[in-house]
Amino acid sequence: MVRELTPKGSATRQRIIEGAAAEIRELGVVATTLDDVRRRTGTSKSQLFHYFPGGREELLLAVARYEADRVLTDQQPQLGDLTSWRAWEEWREVLVERYRRQGWHCPLSAVVAQLGRSTPGAQAVVTEMLDQWQAEIAEGVRAMQAQHEIDPELDADEAAAALLAGIQGGVMIMLSTGRLTHLEAALDVAIRHLRETSAAGSVRASG
Amino acid sequence: MVRELTPKGSATRQRIIEGAAAEIRELGVVATTLDDVRRRTGTSKSQLFHYFPGGREELLLAVARYEADRVLTDQQPQLGDLTSWRAWEEWREVLVERYRRQGWHCPLSAVVAQLGRSTPGAQAVVTEMLDQWQAEIAEGVRAMQAQHEIDPELDADEAAAALLAGIQGGVMIMLSTGRLTHLEAALDVAIRHLRETSAAGSVRASG
Repeated sequence: MVRELTPKGSATRQRIIEGAAAEIRELGVVATTLDDVRRRTGTSKSQLFHYFPGGREELLLAVARYEADRVLTDQQPQLGDLTSWRAWEEWREVLVERYRRQGWHCPLSAVVAQLGRSTPGAQAVVTEMLDQWQAEIAEGVRAMQAQHEIDPELDADEAAAALLAGIQGGVMIMLSTGRLTHLEAALDVAIRHLRETSAAGSVRASG
Repeated sequence: MVRELTPKGSATRQRIIEGAAAEIRELGVVATTLDDVRRRTGTSKSQLFHYFPGGREELLLAVARYEADRVLTDQQPQLGDLTSWRAWEEWREVLVERYRRQGWHCPLSAVVAQLGRSTPGAQAVVTEMLDQWQAEIAEGVRAMQAQHEIDPELDADEAAAALLAGIQGGVMIMLSTGRLTHLEAALDVAIRHLRETSAAGSVRASG
């Protein structure tokens, strides 16, 4: 997978990935063929195999990585700057709105399911995305701890892991039932709890 | 789907479902054929179609319902009796242990994926399971509120929805990464938070 590409080569490769992602968003991952992708991106068979020698599976993996990146960039700039309660609330809105817009179709989860969730490639993409997501939440918790807005004794990594689980479950429940209420409950309960720890912390300190 | 079966008929139907579920647990849902199920359960083609006129899809739906029931019964008696903190902690252990044992393979999620997560049948099975699960958690929250172990002003349904989302996300993350840490964090943070609300409630009351 490690190949030196010229800037032009990188741009072509990226164009193929984005075209494949768009095709998959329209047709679904099962129905999308390499020929569809070639047609949409105006690339030849040899070009496609030059950039993706592993064929369909390698391209799908690149699309998974692209969609995973989008999950995170769609939450910016809020997710990367959780330094006030206002930012937390805005992030909550952006996230719920993202999944409300996306509705039943989660391209990342479709591509991951197609690759096989427990295959090493899919696993690496998902793990990397979750790690990054959790790290940004944990950084936000620490920023609020530094301002004494969250109990400094709280385990920021555990709190971030729990909140991330709630978000993933909320999205999963939405994909299975059409309801957004669980995603909202997971975010609201967790953020409210984090805000309350500050008061609990002062109670403990004065107790 | 509504058919009157004799007790013997019901038993045969149940035997086919359980045989199919066992076969799917061993071979995976994609590899399991109706012939495998017939061989394992010693049933004829006409018997199989008598009980499942819709064929493979109807049988898979029945297996999904059976596996969804198992998810809930595996958590009993704890889940149905969350009336002390000790019961909550035992439930937490039972649940984590269930998913540790089950490992990467979640038969329910495999069958639901095969049926198509957003098909009405699969959706009904998952929604019903989640509703039941959430109702039992909410009942546990209310039981602890009645004992003043949880702030009576807390919204029990919202808390149950958030905890359920955390559990689903924790399981999903385990199925994608092999790590149980998120399931544990979701349970531990939520239970700790519920316990703390009691103190916060008294602070508010006396403040």
